[in-house]
Amino acid sequence: MMNYDVIIVGASAAGVTAAITAKYHYPNKKIMVIRKEELVPIPCGIPYTFGIVGAPEKGLIPADEMFKKNNIDTRIGDVIEIDRSASKIRTDNGEEYGYKRLILATGSNPIVPTLSGKDKENVFSIRKDVPYLQKIIDTLQKAKHLCIVGCGFIGVEIAEECRRKRLDLEITIVEMLTHCLQLVYDEEFCIKAESTLKEQNINLLLDEKVESFKGDEFVKGVKLASGRIIDADMVILGIGAVANIDIASKAGLEIGPTKGIQVNRYMQTSDPAIYACGDCAEKVSFFDGKKSPLKLASIATMEARVAGANLFSTNRVNMGVIGVYSTVLGNCAFAAAGLTRSQAVERGFDVVVGESEAVNRHPGCMPDAEMMKVKLIFEAGSQVILGGQVSGAKSGGELINAISACIHQRMTADDIATFQTGTHPALTASPIAYQLVNAAEMAIGKMKMR
Amino acid sequence: MMNYDVIIVGASAAGVTAAITAKYHYPNKKIMVIRKEELVPIPCGIPYTFGIVGAPEKGLIPADEMFKKNNIDTRIGDVIEIDRSASKIRTDNGEEYGYKRLILATGSNPIVPTLSGKDKENVFSIRKDVPYLQKIIDTLQKAKHLCIVGCGFIGVEIAEECRRKRLDLEITIVEMLTHCLQLVYDEEFCIKAESTLKEQNINLLLDEKVESFKGDEFVKGVKLASGRIIDADMVILGIGAVANIDIASKAGLEIGPTKGIQVNRYMQTSDPAIYACGDCAEKVSFFDGKKSPLKLASIATMEARVAGANLFSTNRVNMGVIGVYSTVLGNCAFAAAGLTRSQAVERGFDVVVGESEAVNRHPGCMPDAEMMKVKLIFEAGSQVILGGQVSGAKSGGELINAISACIHQRMTADDIATFQTGTHPALTASPIAYQLVNAAEMAIGKMKMR
Repeated sequence: MMNYDVIIVGASAAGVTAAITAKYHYPNKKIMVIRKEELVPIPCGIPYTFGIVGAPEKGLIPADEMFKKNNIDTRIGDVIEIDRSASKIRTDNGEEYGYKRLILATGSNPIVPTLSGKDKENVFSIRKDVPYLQKIIDTLQKAKHLCIVGCGFIGVEIAEECRRKRLDLEITIVEMLTHCLQLVYDEEFCIKAESTLKEQNINLLLDEKVESFKGDEFVKGVKLASGRIIDADMVILGIGAVANIDIASKAGLEIGPTKGIQVNRYMQTSDPAIYACGDCAEKVSFFDGKKSPLKLASIATMEARVAGANLFSTNRVNMGVIGVYSTVLGNCAFAAAGLTRSQAVERGFDVVVGESEAVNRHPGCMPDAEMMKVKLIFEAGSQVILGGQVSGAKSGGELINAISACIHQRMTADDIATFQTGTHPALTASPIAYQLVNAAEMAIGKMKMR
Repeated sequence: MMNYDVIIVGASAAGVTAAITAKYHYPNKKIMVIRKEELVPIPCGIPYTFGIVGAPEKGLIPADEMFKKNNIDTRIGDVIEIDRSASKIRTDNGEEYGYKRLILATGSNPIVPTLSGKDKENVFSIRKDVPYLQKIIDTLQKAKHLCIVGCGFIGVEIAEECRRKRLDLEITIVEMLTHCLQLVYDEEFCIKAESTLKEQNINLLLDEKVESFKGDEFVKGVKLASGRIIDADMVILGIGAVANIDIASKAGLEIGPTKGIQVNRYMQTSDPAIYACGDCAEKVSFFDGKKSPLKLASIATMEARVAGANLFSTNRVNMGVIGVYSTVLGNCAFAAAGLTRSQAVERGFDVVVGESEAVNRHPGCMPDAEMMKVKLIFEAGSQVILGGQVSGAKSGGELINAISACIHQRMTADDIATFQTGTHPALTASPIAYQLVNAAEMAIGKMKMR
């Protein structure tokens, strides 16, 4: 039996990052990553392999390359058991490996609803599995009516990429909530996203629930709770994911209330030699410490950097998940961090909002000038920022990270209003009109007038 | 005599922002801005009016529009005296206005060196003066050999814009330091900037000092201290600016050691009813509280937001200048915040550097993928960030503001390494490869190995 100081199970965003972090922090430790799949897709890149990237093989995490460069061992194998008393893991073909510390980065599986007809041919979910993704793409070539269930990030991004590839395809997204991306953006941003989708001739059926999938062997239609039936010779489900906790629960590790592997703020499970990070791990909110259902690659890598650094001495703490997102629809970036206004109100915060919109160049006649809007949400008493949203120019994808830093540091509206920004005619709004600062200033104005 | 609650002298970045901030914070106060110039150029936009923007009239601060929208009075007039005992100002044509609070935002003037021949025709400096700037542009049409003195931001940006307009013009920049932009970037970034300029057929004469300007009525050449003489029928000086403190010093306000109007951390001058902000005000460094010579529009607006908010009650404090810069050379963004490695070493900090370079898309075959490099400088003992530099994709213009937030909050390398970033295939590097986080992680690795 081969023995390692550290074994990591899984090689998606969390597993790869945990391994590299562990090597940075403990360069003399012997580290091995074991994974089930030969090829590991970049999780957030999957929708793009359907369109602009062209093939799942072009959207892979270069895991082996990264492991080799960092002097980390790697193996392909399906871990089916953790023997905690003997500190070893076992694969489905009987291989055993000893560990001093184990990191579970086993990820998540797509939710498949228990609806009649869900097993018909050409009903797909989005699995991190290259041959399966290739099958979706092959089916897409011949489809006439695509129905996407769920209007979250996966749903809207796949819809756009399918449109990019197939101008003649009828595409319909069915969403049970009132707006697309409603869990991430406030209403006005959702409405803007919806019109971007409609401009691309993507049908949106909002406030509609799927009841069943119709057809014989192959799916032919989707029946909605409203009674409506829509044609569909292909269905893609994008309605979320559940933590993959099989080996953890089999090993008797504590499982949390949202069915993730329970971890403390240092990413340790109920067995102090075993850590978990990424989609498989239970999460709490940065804002109130309550359970959070968020699953994001950027949360996974943050948790992995905590887990990897803490293996042999405690260096880092997980502050809880903020939730920082971005996407592009049409030519418009949509990004968000922290709580939306509605989420903050739901949680009982007294909120004040500031907004600022300006072109991302100055003067506005500079080339490539585009509008960029920033909305910030503050707690009225303390003036601490709770969240922010950006739409417009693509540099919003980095601006949201400045907002994330503000949230992380619980900066107040005054801190943000007087924070020193770099501005340039060819890169940003002017320092007078800079959206982040002006949105904070506007919120302060509103708080003064209360 | 007209009386105001607040009078602001100057309507460039500081004056406009101070006025609007004052209105946000004190909506019932009567506010007036008085300025000398009819038209106010966007200061950092001036180089672009020489090329891509096309004319100085297209690169103006829409000051009157902003004042009108915010219910702020405005006048054109040259303030020549402050009568502190009577709390009034006087213009050159004898108009008087009373104030309760006065904000001086009188800006700066370009440094003109005391060199022989500096007054010859076609030797220009960069003044915030539209007719004068138009004269430079007119001269540029006919010039054959342009010599730019000073390889700071103004120098390199003007060189590029002149090249954009005139492919046949010989352009030479003379700089007395060893590298272009040396006060803002570390050597490797400077060298990259230099090769971008050379690719555009812009000659760089580094480590060279100007001794005199040759010619009769019109300039014909530039003599360097090395003895070399270069042809030049047009010269543009871009070697810095000095605070415009005329009326302040005439009124007996205290002047600081770098010849700016002395202010406290609340932007009050030695007369508590008079505030100063922007290029005319004395500055201290965020890092060590020592005097700082930095003059930037983004510093001016920050100081204006402090001054404007503090007029009738203290709300904000100026933490000192960080220095956040960005520019674009060729198609490459160069951005910096805080101290460079060499500046930090000069100030006696024990520094550790982390660097990370990756494409700003994932996978790398996504459209518009460009490299983006991040360098972070940390104090080794505390792990607190001291500065950062970015080069590559244009979204670096916003990423530098995330770095600025980190500096502002004195975040440690661990804080940054575990900070939650938004990432997206079409907008940023992958969460595994995200440059800001990985640069922090690399620095930690180095600190561990010490």
